[in-house]
Amino acid sequence: MTVTERRRLTAVARGDAPADLYLRGATLLNVYTGEIAPANVAVTRERIAYVGMRDDMVGARTRVLEAAGRILVPGYIDPHAHPGHLVTPSALARHVLTLGTTSLVGDTLQLIELGGVRAFRLGADLLTGSPLKFYWMLRVHGQTAALDERRRFPLRDLVRAVGHPRVVAVGEVTRWPQVHAGDGETLRRLALATAARKRVEGHTAGASAEKIAGIAAGGLTSDHEPITADEVLSRARQGMAVMLRQSSLRRDLSQLLDALKRAPALVSRAMLTADGAMPQFIAAHGFMDHCLRLAMEGGVAPIDAYRMATLNPATYFGLDGDIGGIAPGRYADVCVLRDLAEPRPEMVVARGHVVARDGRLLVRVPELPWSRLYTTARARLTVRWRARANDFVLPSRRHYPVLRLVSTVISRLENRPLAPGDLHAALVDREGRWVAPAVVAGFADIDGLAATASTDFNIVVLGRSPEAMAAAVNAVLDRRGGVVLMDAGKIVSALATPIGGIMSRATLAEAAAGERALHAALAARGYPYHDPLFSLYFLAADFLPEVRLSPRGVWDVKRSRVLLPARRRVR
Amino acid sequence: MTVTERRRLTAVARGDAPADLYLRGATLLNVYTGEIAPANVAVTRERIAYVGMRDDMVGARTRVLEAAGRILVPGYIDPHAHPGHLVTPSALARHVLTLGTTSLVGDTLQLIELGGVRAFRLGADLLTGSPLKFYWMLRVHGQTAALDERRRFPLRDLVRAVGHPRVVAVGEVTRWPQVHAGDGETLRRLALATAARKRVEGHTAGASAEKIAGIAAGGLTSDHEPITADEVLSRARQGMAVMLRQSSLRRDLSQLLDALKRAPALVSRAMLTADGAMPQFIAAHGFMDHCLRLAMEGGVAPIDAYRMATLNPATYFGLDGDIGGIAPGRYADVCVLRDLAEPRPEMVVARGHVVARDGRLLVRVPELPWSRLYTTARARLTVRWRARANDFVLPSRRHYPVLRLVSTVISRLENRPLAPGDLHAALVDREGRWVAPAVVAGFADIDGLAATASTDFNIVVLGRSPEAMAAAVNAVLDRRGGVVLMDAGKIVSALATPIGGIMSRATLAEAAAGERALHAALAARGYPYHDPLFSLYFLAADFLPEVRLSPRGVWDVKRSRVLLPARRRVR
Repeated sequence: MTVTERRRLTAVARGDAPADLYLRGATLLNVYTGEIAPANVAVTRERIAYVGMRDDMVGARTRVLEAAGRILVPGYIDPHAHPGHLVTPSALARHVLTLGTTSLVGDTLQLIELGGVRAFRLGADLLTGSPLKFYWMLRVHGQTAALDERRRFPLRDLVRAVGHPRVVAVGEVTRWPQVHAGDGETLRRLALATAARKRVEGHTAGASAEKIAGIAAGGLTSDHEPITADEVLSRARQGMAVMLRQSSLRRDLSQLLDALKRAPALVSRAMLTADGAMPQFIAAHGFMDHCLRLAMEGGVAPIDAYRMATLNPATYFGLDGDIGGIAPGRYADVCVLRDLAEPRPEMVVARGHVVARDGRLLVRVPELPWSRLYTTARARLTVRWRARANDFVLPSRRHYPVLRLVSTVISRLENRPLAPGDLHAALVDREGRWVAPAVVAGFADIDGLAATASTDFNIVVLGRSPEAMAAAVNAVLDRRGGVVLMDAGKIVSALATPIGGIMSRATLAEAAAGERALHAALAARGYPYHDPLFSLYFLAADFLPEVRLSPRGVWDVKRSRVLLPARRRVR
Repeated sequence: MTVTERRRLTAVARGDAPADLYLRGATLLNVYTGEIAPANVAVTRERIAYVGMRDDMVGARTRVLEAAGRILVPGYIDPHAHPGHLVTPSALARHVLTLGTTSLVGDTLQLIELGGVRAFRLGADLLTGSPLKFYWMLRVHGQTAALDERRRFPLRDLVRAVGHPRVVAVGEVTRWPQVHAGDGETLRRLALATAARKRVEGHTAGASAEKIAGIAAGGLTSDHEPITADEVLSRARQGMAVMLRQSSLRRDLSQLLDALKRAPALVSRAMLTADGAMPQFIAAHGFMDHCLRLAMEGGVAPIDAYRMATLNPATYFGLDGDIGGIAPGRYADVCVLRDLAEPRPEMVVARGHVVARDGRLLVRVPELPWSRLYTTARARLTVRWRARANDFVLPSRRHYPVLRLVSTVISRLENRPLAPGDLHAALVDREGRWVAPAVVAGFADIDGLAATASTDFNIVVLGRSPEAMAAAVNAVLDRRGGVVLMDAGKIVSALATPIGGIMSRATLAEAAAGERALHAALAARGYPYHDPLFSLYFLAADFLPEVRLSPRGVWDVKRSRVLLPARRRVR
């Protein structure tokens, strides 16, 4: 905030200058004190100037919003978001603003992996003025351990990027084993955050309680991955900030709340997060408003629940002077509620403007200029090559390392001959230079399915027919990205994600409809879990148990070795 | 923390390297979760590597401290300290370390006013390795509004100083009226903090609840000045962090706790502070341990009380990765208690060393090289000049603006002829170039009393005899600083403060004894309040009501005008 802005705020607070906006007659949930009491709110430009009963800053041109009978709570904050799942960050913002979320801390993986650190900086600059405030966690390594990582995540560029005013953390750091092991290169990258007085977002999925001390000692400051109350407590006890998650992938929040019953003092530090929920889930359930509702339904007192979605994340990230409460100096981010128990707002004020009313968006959220951010042929999927059926022919073996899906994302390794129901599968280079064939079980009974959104940004393909698999890959290439399901030579379901091969140009509601149709088609073919896009997305996630697709071949995660090698292909 | 340090921590946490220190068998108060449970603590060098039940990091050279039956709590933090009142920061550290305080956020006024920003930087660097960790709030203007302020607090030097790794805030900002008024120069100086992601320590003594919005809008992020529960709540409601104070000057803590009863959620953000308590008070009552005891006696739950002196201030200042809890990565600052209800520790570990046991200090705390910090004749009080009785002769008037002390520090203005019991008084330039005569009532019945410690670092003198006043000034000049009480031509009581004229070379206990003797001598002569040194110190505090001594003359605070002018003198 500039000195001029501060001077203007004090003038309005004194009643010496008119407010631009004045919310009158409501009751306010004060997240600082926990009190609920009548208070009016005066806003100038983007910020709150005054909270109280005076109205001498109401002038002739002040827009007065009558809010009698309503409750004001601060705009919600998602401390751990992945804006770039199927829809663009702006499309996500357009939807979740109407649900009361006015700030999020977003992943930078999609920007950096496909556009470099330069794309992140440009994107962050361009979104700085967005009605939904984007803060960022800076990735300092890839999601998967590709070989050219130091080129893709050059330390020199990261040092500069971590100083960006909207970067509040380094992360998400998916490599807790390296942190626990004290790997020098990993710790050097995390140290970028400490030097800039910023946080380090962890990811400790599967780490036992005994490992957490070493992980905390290595410098991770938060974790959003606990899936049981015990895991929440084991992280919190070692001084890590804990984010309680309800996402499309993991719907654990209700049981995580048990941790707050066992350790009530923890509630003043805990946070809620939707952790990259998919459009279909957001469209059906909501976003941070959904987390809030579940928390209150689970017995959390309203003040504690709202704090977990406002003041607590703001404080954790050192942003409490800007967001997280309705007080002078903060951005004017206010949810107008009918009832404290119903966190979905009637009206949303963000950065001093009424941005939504009754679920309708009232402002423009600019789209990023993707052609300037994603400039390479790889990012834009404009390399001309075609998949062929024999790309997916398996080498002749008696036993194969079969990847059996045992939940939406977790796999088990089976070493055995092929069996009925097994699918051929492959990870294919975006540029068509290599293919890593594999066998997958437990997914669905399909001819061919290809997707360009995966943790390592290559193409995942599954099917019982190599021809249908090739057709599916070629169909997503035609669309410059997306998900295509082929059956009996025909396209059954298709989502186009032409932005970087990962994001649609659609609204969140439209993307949700496409996702729903794909899910239905897959469920009809035996897909047994709840999020097929995440099943596909994480097939290449070499940080999850137990066996994965990788550019080197089928990968044994625990033993760090290739079980079935990738092979070069001619485009 | 370096990457090498982090690697060492993870190795000890894994059990792959031996700990230097291992605290075994105690119960631990986990400030993150509020739980109390058995846990051992392994330390390597200065930091905690592991908290838990394993002991595979205990090696042949690990020092094992048996702590069965004891309770471990984090080292205490004073978020608002004035190290430099009568004793040096190091002398304060030597005393309060034995009482469990292992970190403080200290005022930089005494360093900057007498040695410039350079002295602060040098002093902060030299104290960076101290067993008690000194963090700093950077003064960006003088305590009083002297005319050459921009020379004494050059913006360019401050910009550099605010980036010092141990600076965590700008402040204490004593000028809330300028903040409230939106004064550009003041706000520009506060903005140094925001740019560096640091805090702005406020001081809103006397500001009404209605003024707080404007003050918060101006950028103050905390206040330690509330003296009633209502004031606590009025600050907290506007998003300011509140420090609840029990100092030698203001002993308000017990009644401030009512705010926590009225707004229980506030406790997770509130902090405790001793705010520059004087040596006599600390020697008699304690420091942060005293605040903690009062809080628990006042009904605050132990977990909340300890958080207010550990985790809460650490979080507020963004230091929670370094201090405020017993968890991996943090400095190994641990108080070993016999009983949770008794915060005075049996043993204190700071930065990984046993620094105190049963109140005895076991380590060396280096003294600062004051001759390198205070280099000017003014700072060292080595200018050769002598006071004369006629320096204190009042100009002839029918009515005088009499400064009547109505509490330890608050004065009222009386405009009237001289009356029996009135004392002559003056503020005298340290270098003898001017004198500002005045009349003071309500202090004590004394011949002559002079002191070199005042808010504006000039010499305050009081008495009924101009000769005794001159003798008292000359006696403090002989000592290069201090407080001297003359009676019937003799020195009755004297404290020498030859370091900058404000600090003794004594231990805190010795200084407390001198302070006690002076207080007794003044009480015997009618001094009615509880802290004569603060009464003297604040006589020149032009930010307190209602009338003050100033270099320009007797000063009407509210009307900002001189009531009785200063005059030049020949040395």
